[in-house]
Amino acid sequence: MRLSKLRQMMAKLDYQALLLTEPLNIRYLSGFSGSSASLLITAEQQFLLTDYRYTEQAQTECASFTIICRDRSAQSLGQCIAQLLAPLPINRLQLEYAHLSVELYRQLQHELPLTLSPAANLTEQLRACKDPQELKCLCQAASIADNALAWLLPQLQLGMTEREAADLLQHKIYALGADELAFPTILLSGARSALPHGKPGQRRFERGDWILLDFGARVEGYRSDMTRTVVLGQASAEQQQFYQTVFNAQQAALAAVKPGITGHQLDQIAQQVLSASPYAAYVGEGLGHGVGLALHEYPLMRRGCDVVLQPGMVITIEPGLYKPGFGGVRIEDDIVLTHDGYELLTHSPRQLQQLPT
Amino acid sequence: MRLSKLRQMMAKLDYQALLLTEPLNIRYLSGFSGSSASLLITAEQQFLLTDYRYTEQAQTECASFTIICRDRSAQSLGQCIAQLLAPLPINRLQLEYAHLSVELYRQLQHELPLTLSPAANLTEQLRACKDPQELKCLCQAASIADNALAWLLPQLQLGMTEREAADLLQHKIYALGADELAFPTILLSGARSALPHGKPGQRRFERGDWILLDFGARVEGYRSDMTRTVVLGQASAEQQQFYQTVFNAQQAALAAVKPGITGHQLDQIAQQVLSASPYAAYVGEGLGHGVGLALHEYPLMRRGCDVVLQPGMVITIEPGLYKPGFGGVRIEDDIVLTHDGYELLTHSPRQLQQLPT
Repeated sequence: MRLSKLRQMMAKLDYQALLLTEPLNIRYLSGFSGSSASLLITAEQQFLLTDYRYTEQAQTECASFTIICRDRSAQSLGQCIAQLLAPLPINRLQLEYAHLSVELYRQLQHELPLTLSPAANLTEQLRACKDPQELKCLCQAASIADNALAWLLPQLQLGMTEREAADLLQHKIYALGADELAFPTILLSGARSALPHGKPGQRRFERGDWILLDFGARVEGYRSDMTRTVVLGQASAEQQQFYQTVFNAQQAALAAVKPGITGHQLDQIAQQVLSASPYAAYVGEGLGHGVGLALHEYPLMRRGCDVVLQPGMVITIEPGLYKPGFGGVRIEDDIVLTHDGYELLTHSPRQLQQLPT
Repeated sequence: MRLSKLRQMMAKLDYQALLLTEPLNIRYLSGFSGSSASLLITAEQQFLLTDYRYTEQAQTECASFTIICRDRSAQSLGQCIAQLLAPLPINRLQLEYAHLSVELYRQLQHELPLTLSPAANLTEQLRACKDPQELKCLCQAASIADNALAWLLPQLQLGMTEREAADLLQHKIYALGADELAFPTILLSGARSALPHGKPGQRRFERGDWILLDFGARVEGYRSDMTRTVVLGQASAEQQQFYQTVFNAQQAALAAVKPGITGHQLDQIAQQVLSASPYAAYVGEGLGHGVGLALHEYPLMRRGCDVVLQPGMVITIEPGLYKPGFGGVRIEDDIVLTHDGYELLTHSPRQLQQLPT
């Protein structure tokens, strides 16, 4: 089904053959969950090229593909492709230029008697709209994140380190049935919460700290991605105002989500709220991104992204303010576009939570 | 120090400027541990190019670099580089072709009034020989793996799933002080152990199962990578012979490790032992790899790799046999080359362990 949709797109663009090298595109089309393979797709045939390490796995996972086990020390990828295409009337090959190294590209140029050109991001486009089976995994991944957070928050206390809290959270995510974490947990406290992608460290929680938690679970490859920012103890008036600004920006963006709007427009709506506040100097860049097999995937919610949102797309909405020396607040939820709006996948409370100390 | 060594190599090769895009090369040279940056290095200057998400982190971590915070929606990487190099007498730029997408390369070609060419893997060469501070992290990462395994093995029992066992192991790795896992744990049982890179699943352990555990810890970015294969219960005569073959191959390779030998030669020594056994049809490809900031790094121990081993290099020695339907055995240790041989970093018992049931 996915493969036939891809072939329709290939036919429209007059592609004779397509080489896919992006691992998640490969997984989406073939079911292969290993880390080293490529797909070669023509109008009639589909090959999965891998090596001895993954042959058995590929045979189990990719029933609809012809599995080619290449001896990497005896045959290059280019030689292997040339051999497979030789019997076919093919003289052009489309490649994923965003997911192909210049080194490999030059080898292929040298070894293939074909015209090489960039492929459009066809598989990324297919991946943007999730089918029911994918939505089930995404809901489960979001639910694990919600439950892990609800379990963790009452346990946060003065003197605990960021690293200790992150370990507790991660262990709970696994215990709740995740295959993997969606990504290494970001758990930052105090002024460190202004580091948008910092790592949990040995800093110990103090009274009045921001604690920013950005984390998720993976279920059958599909990821959740949620952020909450809480205060350990009583929030100051400035913390409350700072938080409320981000909250308002998220609410404004959510209220506008429906099919037909673009990522650019949603971003503008949130930016307007943040920029009209006293914290205009501390606004983070971008509002969100598609999420699925990849943590960040098509479409993006940021300036210049004119992709029109459609039902079935799953995206994050995550405005943030980051004030060096004071701290950062981000509120991030995962939503799925419906025919007339959206549904939340993540359900943890969004209002400022002040944890008892 | 690292930067001055790199500049010496650049000068020898007559490089005017070097753009580094491989995240671990960037970390090694600058200290930057985030995931989105590039380095631009000339004879006199060094820039770290990143965006608002990582600016504060870069300022903390990379004292010796000039931090450039690029607004990604207003300026492309090529425009930013062009602006930085404009005042300098530079007309050539070397790039990491193995770690640069064709897409970005074509943008740079379009935007830079410079001759672009491939850089040799200078930073990878520097990274191969570890300094005392790096060795300390690697020893600690190996020690965590040893201790986690010693803790786990007595807890493995009939009916436990691969996933449950992997979770226990991973939790212990964190509890022992790892920053992160070295990689997602491979823990496979029964005939599934023949999948060289399979993922832990819901299969439950049975009496007489192989259990293959390939895992590691990360300490300040440096990884350990160890594999042990045990039998749950009494090993059959065939299991014992199969295991002993791999053990003998590892011993033969280890006995030959010293500065001056190549990865190709070490691989041949192990291959000869495996190929002379009744299991010649099931020999895995390659013997090992460098390990450090990357799980697999320079140099490689496999056919055709003529890099001469030197003191300070840290490598894995991991021969394996993989017989579909029967199972796989791999024994993997991390070692550091010394002036006249090697020292083991991993110390878990290597002889076949038969766990009580």
